[in-house]
Amino acid sequence: MLRIMIEIKARKEAASRTARLDAVFAALADPTRRAIIERLSRSEARVTEVAEPFHMSLNAVSKHIRVLEASGVVERHRKGRDHILSINTRSLDEVDGWIERMRCYWEERLDAMERLLRELKKDHRLGRKDRRHGSR
Amino acid sequence: MLRIMIEIKARKEAASRTARLDAVFAALADPTRRAIIERLSRSEARVTEVAEPFHMSLNAVSKHIRVLEASGVVERHRKGRDHILSINTRSLDEVDGWIERMRCYWEERLDAMERLLRELKKDHRLGRKDRRHGSR
Repeated sequence: MLRIMIEIKARKEAASRTARLDAVFAALADPTRRAIIERLSRSEARVTEVAEPFHMSLNAVSKHIRVLEASGVVERHRKGRDHILSINTRSLDEVDGWIERMRCYWEERLDAMERLLRELKKDHRLGRKDRRHGSR
Repeated sequence: MLRIMIEIKARKEAASRTARLDAVFAALADPTRRAIIERLSRSEARVTEVAEPFHMSLNAVSKHIRVLEASGVVERHRKGRDHILSINTRSLDEVDGWIERMRCYWEERLDAMERLLRELKKDHRLGRKDRRHGSR
């Protein structure tokens, strides 16, 4: 019984991790939203400050901010009358972790290919030497 | 004239880089597509091999593969009758570079915050000492 409950819990966690990755990648798939993240990566800021550099309505920027909040990348807290936005770095760590894992896989493959290439080159050089010395 | 042409070229490159980032992030925002990338990160494979573990039609998997190809993350070449899929690691490098840049920003901020905290703690300890010695 306990084992089943632990398994259910692990599956739920994996499912919510998957949903979080979906949401963060979808949030990053837009240049305005990436620009907002760049802005907030430098310092937290009010909604109006974040919206200012964009050639679009405050309403349009607010929609992008809501997508970022839903994905967990951006957080909002109130300071008196102001809504302050900031980055939740942990949400991007998860994405970074996924890409890092992929990189590990393919770097292993690239290393293996490099070793193979070196071996082939060595064989090729030895082959040439053999030919030069007339041992073939 | 030359300066304008260089500027136009730079803008075009920035625009296509932005479009590539959009496409790659959108491609990664789906669990099936991420699983395909994980599979291909281990070794290149035929379309049918890639499709096998998924509980969906070959047609459905093919659609996901086409999205990955359009984003530049996955490449296809023919070997006789077979279509072989492989990862284009450069496309993920670009995404990784973007996240890395964000990380630099916020790590600087975290470092600054840490320094501030240390200063505050030191002041606090000094303050207590002062009080203990009755110097206030």
